[in-house]
Amino acid sequence: MTELARIGGTDTAVSRLGLSADEQRARDLVGGWLSARGAHVWRDAAANLFARFGGQGQAILVGSHLDSVPEGGRFDGALGVLCAVEAVESLVDAKAKLRRPVEVVAWADEEGARFGVGLFGSTASFGRLGRGVADRHDRDGVSIADALRALGEQGDPAAAQRDPAELAAYLELHIEQGPRLERAGLALGVVSEIVGIYHARVTIRGRADHAGATVMTARADALAAASEIVLAVERIARGRPDSVGTVGEIAVRPGAKNVVPGECVFSLDLRAVQDHDGLVREVLGSVTGIASSRAVEASVDELARVPVTSLDPKIREVLKRATKSVGVDAPDLVSGAGHDAQNPALSGVPTGMIFVRSTGGSHTPREYASVEDAALGAQALANAIKELAS
Amino acid sequence: MTELARIGGTDTAVSRLGLSADEQRARDLVGGWLSARGAHVWRDAAANLFARFGGQGQAILVGSHLDSVPEGGRFDGALGVLCAVEAVESLVDAKAKLRRPVEVVAWADEEGARFGVGLFGSTASFGRLGRGVADRHDRDGVSIADALRALGEQGDPAAAQRDPAELAAYLELHIEQGPRLERAGLALGVVSEIVGIYHARVTIRGRADHAGATVMTARADALAAASEIVLAVERIARGRPDSVGTVGEIAVRPGAKNVVPGECVFSLDLRAVQDHDGLVREVLGSVTGIASSRAVEASVDELARVPVTSLDPKIREVLKRATKSVGVDAPDLVSGAGHDAQNPALSGVPTGMIFVRSTGGSHTPREYASVEDAALGAQALANAIKELAS
Repeated sequence: MTELARIGGTDTAVSRLGLSADEQRARDLVGGWLSARGAHVWRDAAANLFARFGGQGQAILVGSHLDSVPEGGRFDGALGVLCAVEAVESLVDAKAKLRRPVEVVAWADEEGARFGVGLFGSTASFGRLGRGVADRHDRDGVSIADALRALGEQGDPAAAQRDPAELAAYLELHIEQGPRLERAGLALGVVSEIVGIYHARVTIRGRADHAGATVMTARADALAAASEIVLAVERIARGRPDSVGTVGEIAVRPGAKNVVPGECVFSLDLRAVQDHDGLVREVLGSVTGIASSRAVEASVDELARVPVTSLDPKIREVLKRATKSVGVDAPDLVSGAGHDAQNPALSGVPTGMIFVRSTGGSHTPREYASVEDAALGAQALANAIKELAS
Repeated sequence: MTELARIGGTDTAVSRLGLSADEQRARDLVGGWLSARGAHVWRDAAANLFARFGGQGQAILVGSHLDSVPEGGRFDGALGVLCAVEAVESLVDAKAKLRRPVEVVAWADEEGARFGVGLFGSTASFGRLGRGVADRHDRDGVSIADALRALGEQGDPAAAQRDPAELAAYLELHIEQGPRLERAGLALGVVSEIVGIYHARVTIRGRADHAGATVMTARADALAAASEIVLAVERIARGRPDSVGTVGEIAVRPGAKNVVPGECVFSLDLRAVQDHDGLVREVLGSVTGIASSRAVEASVDELARVPVTSLDPKIREVLKRATKSVGVDAPDLVSGAGHDAQNPALSGVPTGMIFVRSTGGSHTPREYASVEDAALGAQALANAIKELAS
């Protein structure tokens, strides 16, 4: 796990955004290590990195992502890539006899922190990108296509699509991003399902007015309407089983202390395992109702909608055996976070995930997985790859 | 009024921020015109521009400000400086015999849009700046002192202080920033009082968490708390006489769609003519209550607190006569917006203000005063200066 320090840097916050030069440097490091071990290494049109050991036939694909969120931590994503590297290197070093080729992958821009498109690289690879995604731009007006070109690609991420039939299985290790393993005193878990995720950008248009000269009853305050929606999201998610709803980004225009906000743009993140569609429907109904009662306009730009994903029962059994072989009686866990694993799973590739115990939260510099737990995870991953590839 | 186009540019939005190079250019233009008419022109340590006609003795000071807000209009501030220029030039051209010197002033950074300190230049000139104001910085970390140095000043705005006893009166013309003159069908009004204004920056500190893996009941969402406060400000202001309350700026950290906001910073703008202190007290009580009920921290950084300002009865009479002399029976108006005039008034300088009818709102590119109304205002201002200086 010394590689983690080489990629992740220090104990301080990591803000390695997807499709950035920082992500590229991390990707190049990983590619360099695996190339030195004899892998065939390439990058696709969406800036995903692949490193293949072995020849023809359906491969076992194993990996995760290298990007992070602003003020994020060192483990979310990077640990899964490094454990995949460690697992495959240990099989290469042990000269394990494998019938199937094995590929390590580092997906690009899983978090979507800059362009608002989560699971970007894996979505492109499995041919699931929506139309016009390459034209989405960040706050500075730089598009995804521009960012890819700056990394030396052609700017057409859809060209990254490959045939899911090339893959026999997909495995991903990731920190848990929740306290269940920590509370159970266990190092590893096996993921059963990943929640449905809805991401949207909501724009409220009211009217900018002078904050001193405009009486309260004459206002169309876009932020006041947005504030009502933020509280409605909270109330609705609290009232439904296993649901969470978050407004994590917000901006107002013109954005001066003495001007009533004329426009407010904010993000919506809605997740549930049961009745995800019902959650989305209820929140969007409340957006419409609040906008109408305040005489402001609301428009909703859907960025992503990933259904609830059940992981493959046979792969889950393989992962149960693999974790047991390193001495952990791994529990089934539902993932409240989205993962690249959803894309192969939704494309029919038998898919499984291992969670590693993590403390201190997630998407924060406090997130932490111990070297011991990570080593158990990498060993379990190696055992699972061996079983699936033999 | 052709000068308005020379300073303000076009019909499109004006975003000439205080202490910017744009404001400096406008100031240099005004200084150039008045210097050409024989004025002694200088800039003080807070980047205020003065142009003095005449010799020793207590002066009549007349002017307004040249800065604007992001996406603001052409008239707020600039019209008052240009009408002062027009009025004084007409007196010079008419070789009016004046006993007292007359000074035109263009105050720097009235809006406080960049550093959060409204009425900056006039506050410095009347020795009313709080401690440490020069260290306040914008979003890029540039301080007021830095901005002043970039304009060629020393970086110590407190050095701009001058003795209020040097002034016999202060006059300011400004667009109304409200619909009362328009509704009454009158070009000009005379300001009786300026509302009390409270400006603060509120910081809510909760805890950043993963938006998918953190159940609703385990969150300390800084934006949800801020949203409750935004709605409380609205409710409280609506429930009190002649009160307005606005949250015009808001930002969250870390600011990613899949992270629960750990911190939220927003502005507070609270104004009233009756019981301004009571309004501020009720809102701050609600900030504390909401933070406590949500187990987040709230800290309030007071940026400005200007009491309700009554303008001088004798000067108001002079302005009534002056507006009558141009054919307008000007009504008394309370100003819901803050003005530089508050600083001389609170420092004991006899102070008065003329409002010019404006349509299309205020602090927006739609604000508009006609050339005819502006000319009446400038003529009334000239007549008032003549009466006070003779």
